[in-house]
Formats: sequence, structure tokens, C-alpha cells
Amino acid sequence: MTIGLSTMLAKLESLFASDHASVVSMNLFVALLCACIVLGHLLEETRWMNESITALIIGSCTGIVILLISGGKSSRILVFSEDLFFIYLLPPIIFNAGFQVKKKQFFRNFMTIMLFGAIGTLISFVIISLGAKHFFEKMNIGDLTISDYLAIGAIFSATDSVCTLQVLNQDETPLLYSLVFGEGVVNDATSVVLFNAIQRFDLTNINSAIALEFAGNFFYLFILSTALGVAAGLLSALIMKKLYIGRHSTDREVALMMLLAYLSYMLAELFHLSSILTVFFCGIVMSHYTWHNVTGKSKVTTKHTFAALSFLAEIFIFLYVGMDALDIEKWDVVRDSPGKSIGVSSILLGLVLLGRAAFVFPLSFLSNLTKSSDEKIDWKKQVTIWWAGLMRGAVSMALAYNQFTTSGHTKILGNAIMITSTITVVLFSTVVFGLLTKPLVKHLQPTSKRTPTPISSLTEPLLNGDGSSIQSHETLVRTQGQSDYNIDLPISFAMFWNKPSRAIHHYWRRFDNAVMRRTFGGRGVTKAVPGSPVETSAGQWGEEVENKEIFPEP
Amino acid sequence: MTIGLSTMLAKLESLFASDHASVVSMNLFVALLCACIVLGHLLEETRWMNESITALIIGSCTGIVILLISGGKSSRILVFSEDLFFIYLLPPIIFNAGFQVKKKQFFRNFMTIMLFGAIGTLISFVIISLGAKHFFEKMNIGDLTISDYLAIGAIFSATDSVCTLQVLNQDETPLLYSLVFGEGVVNDATSVVLFNAIQRFDLTNINSAIALEFAGNFFYLFILSTALGVAAGLLSALIMKKLYIGRHSTDREVALMMLLAYLSYMLAELFHLSSILTVFFCGIVMSHYTWHNVTGKSKVTTKHTFAALSFLAEIFIFLYVGMDALDIEKWDVVRDSPGKSIGVSSILLGLVLLGRAAFVFPLSFLSNLTKSSDEKIDWKKQVTIWWAGLMRGAVSMALAYNQFTTSGHTKILGNAIMITSTITVVLFSTVVFGLLTKPLVKHLQPTSKRTPTPISSLTEPLLNGDGSSIQSHETLVRTQGQSDYNIDLPISFAMFWNKPSRAIHHYWRRFDNAVMRRTFGGRGVTKAVPGSPVETSAGQWGEEVENKEIFPEP
Repeated sequence: MTIGLSTMLAKLESLFASDHASVVSMNLFVALLCACIVLGHLLEETRWMNESITALIIGSCTGIVILLISGGKSSRILVFSEDLFFIYLLPPIIFNAGFQVKKKQFFRNFMTIMLFGAIGTLISFVIISLGAKHFFEKMNIGDLTISDYLAIGAIFSATDSVCTLQVLNQDETPLLYSLVFGEGVVNDATSVVLFNAIQRFDLTNINSAIALEFAGNFFYLFILSTALGVAAGLLSALIMKKLYIGRHSTDREVALMMLLAYLSYMLAELFHLSSILTVFFCGIVMSHYTWHNVTGKSKVTTKHTFAALSFLAEIFIFLYVGMDALDIEKWDVVRDSPGKSIGVSSILLGLVLLGRAAFVFPLSFLSNLTKSSDEKIDWKKQVTIWWAGLMRGAVSMALAYNQFTTSGHTKILGNAIMITSTITVVLFSTVVFGLLTKPLVKHLQPTSKRTPTPISSLTEPLLNGDGSSIQSHETLVRTQGQSDYNIDLPISFAMFWNKPSRAIHHYWRRFDNAVMRRTFGGRGVTKAVPGSPVETSAGQWGEEVENKEIFPEP
Repeated sequence: MTIGLSTMLAKLESLFASDHASVVSMNLFVALLCACIVLGHLLEETRWMNESITALIIGSCTGIVILLISGGKSSRILVFSEDLFFIYLLPPIIFNAGFQVKKKQFFRNFMTIMLFGAIGTLISFVIISLGAKHFFEKMNIGDLTISDYLAIGAIFSATDSVCTLQVLNQDETPLLYSLVFGEGVVNDATSVVLFNAIQRFDLTNINSAIALEFAGNFFYLFILSTALGVAAGLLSALIMKKLYIGRHSTDREVALMMLLAYLSYMLAELFHLSSILTVFFCGIVMSHYTWHNVTGKSKVTTKHTFAALSFLAEIFIFLYVGMDALDIEKWDVVRDSPGKSIGVSSILLGLVLLGRAAFVFPLSFLSNLTKSSDEKIDWKKQVTIWWAGLMRGAVSMALAYNQFTTSGHTKILGNAIMITSTITVVLFSTVVFGLLTKPLVKHLQPTSKRTPTPISSLTEPLLNGDGSSIQSHETLVRTQGQSDYNIDLPISFAMFWNKPSRAIHHYWRRFDNAVMRRTFGGRGVTKAVPGSPVETSAGQWGEEVENKEIFPEP
């Protein structure tokens, strides 16, 4: 143990030993992250783009630029490290997902989510494994063992919950969001557990005993991981409540919550459990118990800090994947057989589409049998669920690297083809499927447009549905916001006179909380124009919304 | 450049390559961090302890335990990595210091701070260098060059701004805090710049030309570093204001502020400037401009996130230093000459005391000449300033490692003695001087006790100064807080009737904001007991204090 930490830190020391080149790289990387955020913000208006795709594209472009500068010699721009991914980048994302998920929706659909996430992933895994074995054996792409085919099944069953989060909106389509996202987390866990099991078990001759042991192992991991996450969450709630940490300093509470969340993840790693599941349930319990035992400021801080860290980790991953895709060495081996590589990628994409369809529609049917008519998953929702889970991301990349780079770095044709195909599938599914998801959701779920959403409503017109007759909020806010944020709300004032209650309702529900706080909440109530109708009521509306917004039941 | 990042990440990959031992170590380390926070919280009542000392002691104890478990064989428990320190741990601490510093106080005392931080450090540097040369040459402790003696001067001139922050209270003693802390930051920068200059220049024969170049280099670095920090801060303010990032997501604002702050630090590293100064001024500008251009939620979040991250980095460093102190290899070499090691440490401590006295008192006298009588630094303040800057910390450790471990790891007697003496001085000054600082400040600045302080006032009695006649707030809060946080305030109610205005003033100013929010702010005003005098006013007081607390001018 002591040797481990010492070795680790000795390595860490050598890692950054006054290496000017790595300082340059870090500068470049941080600057690119900033660029992704700013560009992602500017592209927010277009419903087609999101930060993931922006980061992926910026990453690839940077890769190309570096490749050109180095004259094609720099064969390795950036090496994808699965450990960096699993130890530092994934935990904040999954924890935040648990922390921010709408628990009511999540637990109401718990059985459906488990059905999709566990059984569905298994179905998808079987189909992709069998399909890969069927097609690839005929294609002569090098030696792939039965274990490799099963690994391919696990790798391409892992949907990208990160990307899914960015495409669907929790407020616009709550049911879909909780189904797709909940499924994504359980699916990630299932894939990782499957993958670990494949690597651990001797699968040259499968019999019923092994299959049973496999299933037992799976449930054992699932239950223990969940229990550990719940225990860590409850422990943190107990500490906050009994010791009342926030009494002296709210920062201590925030720091302790971060540490305990991370500890739950690392403990799961220590006991070889599914750390994704652990940290997800830790997030749920923390938002349900711990969060209510901390000070108000800690509530706001943790809510947004976890979201911001998760957001940073997400764009980091996509930037990373984008840059890694250009690694020449990988492509060198498959350069002689481009047809094969394209063939393998196409087959895999097809299998992904098929594997997902094979469980979404039948399981939705099963799930509908137990539900009342208004809760049923109609075919439009089924198509959306099917489509929203097609993206493959960093988990697939990490698993593929783990499986296919153990024996030398992709020098073997079979391994090289699998790595390049994984990259192709990830890039294609994220960019093409990702770009098409928002329009598809918009097309299939048109009713969601009218649901008032506090944060993202700025892109939608004010009161009217068609967006033609009244100046949109967005324009209003932007015009005013750019001057000095002191919005005098010319349109809204008129509305207050004409249809006060409706105006107020729509106004506050739809108006960006940020602007609201700038106008009333943040600067104090007294700053409203004296004598105007806003003055008397702004405080109470501001307060009401403020309490809702700042202290929502997460 | 590309090779750099690639090498770095390849190393990072090998660093965590499924190494179970390092997972164990990380668990241990995170668990210890949690323990430090909880213990630090529990020991908060005692005015003598703080988190730094707690972490240092816990770290040392863990080191001893590990040493015993491994049977004295584990020679390296934890290696202090100066790069980990300078690249990951120091930036959040210094940035947060700039972000939270009371700018009015800081800039009012700017000249005094610069006098102490720059000229004072130079005086201290000269005295320690000369003293070390004088004494150590007679002690026969191996070959130390002139460059080594100058390095010793720079190493022991670096006060520990981290520890200082924890000992003094910004609200109780604002002038002292801004002087000692401001000096600490400038002093850190001066020491690092001095140290780099020593390593870069050929100092075997010093003449006036070299001295002039040295001074020119110093001012060049100082001005350019400050300018870079200010530019980065202004850029972030411009982006927030013009693009109005918070419109869509408050998390994006938080993430962008973090990234830009870090970018300023890394850019300074890239151009070989003083990154400490850069990130400090970036923090000041960000809190002055950027912070006012973000949403209300971002304000709360950034304020507390930066504080929490800085807090985590601080206890990480002290835990680290505490564990590193037990490294056997270092002590092996000096084991044969314990007298020499103790002698060197004592001489260094004496020189530190003398070197600091040699500039604090004369420069205070100079500074007093320019000030009006009520702003003068009286002798009690001078003693406090002298004492509060005696602690040596992680910066000294990092510089010492840089200077004395280049030629093999402390195998040479002179190097080994310098490393162990540095550890001794750091431990002794932090623990002994640190423990004595709080009582000393209390003794020398008794008036500060009556200043109402919103956060830390809970350790002080309510209304009365002697703490005998009325139950202290702390007891009240703890007793009530442990039940369910619904405080019905029996004592305070009596006061509201007797001396309403005074009670209100003292009550709200002194009462912990957390409890306040739980009672009124966080859960909505309507929950106050109907008919009680609190009901009518709680909202407005709560709001007033809430606005002050959540949106203070940082």
C-alpha cells in the first residue's frame, strides 16, 4: 500500500518535472476547453448542436492542425487513458447525474428503467456478440477469440449517458429523460460488469454452471454496489446533521460532500464493485438526505458546483476523444485495408441499431402492460428512446482500449481494426445521430414545446406559441443584458396592466432566473422603480421563485 | 509540444494502470482528508487548533502507523512532489486568496504591503543567507556553495500564507489580516522569483552589474506577472458581460471562471513569470469585475466553490507535509550526527526570527511616518505581524526539495541535513508558532473580541463579553441544531421583548447565518411562529442579512 502511493507519487513527480512541453500542452488544452464552452454557448440557439459535438469537432480540428504542423510525423497526438477517464472524469459526471436526477420520476419508472438497463443491455449484448461473430469470421480480419466477440458485445452495448444528458431536456420531456437517462446509467454499469466478467471468466467452453455463476456475480455486484452508495450517502447525511458542519463554515460542508462522494467511488473500486452504480446511488441519497441538512449557501453551491464539474469533465472527454481519433499509429495498420475497416464499422453500426431496437420495442410493450393508459410509452416515445440511446461514447472507447491494446499497441490487424472501428462508431454515432436527435425529439414530441421551462425558455417566444407577433424574450434579454443588465421590461409592464395574473405567471415561469435575480432578487427589492406595480410585488414573486429555484427539491 | 502532452498522458496512464495498491492509497488519503475536516470542525472551539495543525498531526501519525506496520522497512511513505504542489495545489489557494481578499483594505495598505512583501523579504533573505554562511561554514556539514547559501536565504524567507490565513481572522482584525496576508502573497512571489534568479544567475562572483540585472529581472517579472493576471481577469469579465454566458446555464459561467483562472496561472508558468502573483491578481480582478457580471447563483457558487477547493488544497498540503516528514531515507543519512541536525535547525529558526524582526519593526516605523495617527501600526500590531509571519510551510519545502535533491536523493550529508532541517523548521514553526499565534493575537488584540463577526462569533458569548451570565450561542445552537434545526429561540425571544433593537442587532449579526436560513430564509418566511414578534420582522431581517451574506462585495 505504502509502496503503491509512493510509486504513484514518484511517477506523478516525474510526470510534471518542470517539463516545459507539458506546460504548453496544458495551456493549449485549457484554452481549448474555454473555446468549447464559449462556442457551445454561442451555438446554443441552434437546436442541432451541443457542447459534446462542438468539443468533438474542435478536438478533431486541433488534432488535424497538430498533425499538419508536425508534418504528419507526430503519430501520437494524445493517448486516450482509460484510467484517467475512469478515475477522474467519470465520477463527477455520474455523481452529478444522480444528484440532479428528478427522483420522483426516476423511482416511479424504476422497474421500466431496470428492465431497459439490465435486461435490455443483455439482449443488445447477445445480439451484437452473435452478429459480430457471424459477420467478422467471414471477413478474415485476424484472430478474434470468443472472448473478443463477447467483449465487442459489451463494448457496443454501452450507451453514452453523457451525450444523452445533453440531448434531452429534463424539463421538456421528463418521462423520456428519466427513462433514457436512468437506462443509460444502469446500462453503463451493466456493460462494465459484463465486460469485467468476460475478462475474468474462462469462456472457452460455456456451460450452464458458468452462466449461472455469471448471473450470480452480476446480481451480487449490482446489490453490493448500490448498498455501498446508499451507505456512503447516509453517512454523509448523518455527519452533516449530527455534527452540523455548516455552523462554522459552509465551505467545509461543500468540501466534505465532494470528498465523501469521491470516497464512495474509490471504495467501490477498491472492492471491485461497480463504482458507477455506487456513485450514482450515493448522488441520489446525498440529494435526498444530505442536501437537506446543509446551509442554504451550501445547497446552492453544491448544486451548481457538481453540475459545473460534471460539465467540465464532459467536454474534457469529448475534446479528448476528438483529439485521440487522429492518432496515426492506429490508422497505419488498417491503411492497407480501408474497405475492411469501413465494412466492420458499418456492420457494428448496424448491429448497434438492431440490438437496441430488439429490446426497446418489446420491453416497452411489456412495460406498457403494467401501466395505466396515460403513462404508457407510445410508439413516438419508443422511437425517441431507441434513437437517444444509439450514441456510443467514452465508456466504449475505454473498454475497447482495455480489451484490444493489451498485447502491444494495435500492431495486430484484428486489434487495430477493432480500435479504429470503435473510434469510427463513436464519432459517427455522436456527431450524426447526436445532430439528428434534437430535431427528431422536436418532431416526435411537439407538445413539449409549450411546457414552460425556467432555464431554457429563452429561446422560445413570449406567451405566443408561434414566435412571430411578440418580440422574443431572448432578443429582449440579450439587447438589455448587453447594455447593463438593468432591464426595464417595457413589454412586460404593459402585460402587467392588461392581464396581471397571466402575465405574472408566464413572466416568472418563463423569464430567465438569472435576469430575474439581477433585477430584483440579487440587488434587493428596494431597487425596483417606486410606484410601479412591480415594486409592491417583485419582492414576493422574486422570493417565491427564488426559493423554488435556489432550493428546489432536487 | 504534442510529444509533451503525449508523454505526460502516457505517464499518467502508467501511473494509474489498474494498480490496486494505488487505489488503496487513494482511499486512505481521501478518508484522511475527511477525518481532518471532521476533526478540524470538532476542534474549532479550541482557539489553539486549526485545520493545518490537525492535518499535520494526522499526517505524521499516519506516517508513524505505516512505518510500524511495514516494520520500519518502508523507507518512503510519501514523496513530496513539488510539481504536484505548484501545478495543482497552490493555484486554487492563491486564487481564492485574491478572490476573497477585502480589496478596500488591501489597496489602502498597498504601499505598506509592498514594502513588507518585497523590501522586507529581501532584508530577511540577506540576513538569513549571511547568517547561514557565517554559522554553517564553521559546522563542517558538507560542501555548500555560495549559491546554496543564497538558496537557503530564499527558502526560509518564504512565509506560509496558507497557515497565516487560518490563524488570523479577516473580520476580527481586518488591518492585520490584510497586512500579514498581503505581505504573505507578495513574499511568496518574491521568494520564488529570488530562488529562480539564484538558480539561473552565475553567482560565484557578484558584482554591481549582476546585482542590477537581478533587480531589473525582479521588477520585470513583478510587473509582467501582475499585468497578465489583470488581463486574464478583465478578459473573463468581458466574456461574461458581452456574451452573457449565464443566460442558458449558470454552470457554464462557473466552469469558465475556473478555467480562465487556471489558464492565467498556466500562462504565467509558460512565460516563466511568477504564477503566484498572476493568479492572485486574476482573483482580485475577477472578484471586482467578473463576479458582478454573473448570475446570482453563480455568485454564491463561485464564492464558496473557490473557498472549498482552496480549503481542500490546504489540508491536502498539510497532510502531505505531515506524512512526508517521516520519510526514513532522509533521516538515515543524518542519524549519525543528530547534534548537527538539531544545531542547524535551531540556527535556522533563530535566523528566521531575527530576519523577520529585522524588517517588520523598521519598516513599520517607516510606514507609520506616512500615516495618520489612527492608522498607525502600534507596537502590539507590529509584534503580531512579526509573529504571524514566522511559520514556514509548503513553499519552503518545495523550494528546498528543488535545491537539495537534484544530485541524488539526499545521499550527500550537506543536502540531507538541509532537507531534514527544512522539515524540522516547517513542522516546528507550524505546530509551535502556529499553536501560540491564536492566544497571542487574542492577548495582543483584545478589542477585536467585541467586534461582531457573523461566522465565527458562535464561540463567543451572546451580548456579554465575559461569557458567564448568558448561555452562549454555541450551546444554544448545538442543542437545538442536533434535534431538528427548528430553533424556537427561547433566550432570544425574551431579549426581543426587553431590548428589541439591541437584541435584533446583536442577534442577527451574531447568529449563525446557517441557522438563520434554516429558520426563516431557506424554508420561507411563512414558517415563523404566527403572532410572535419574529414573524413580522424575520423576513426583512433575514433578507437583509441574506443579501449581505450571499451577495457581499467580496
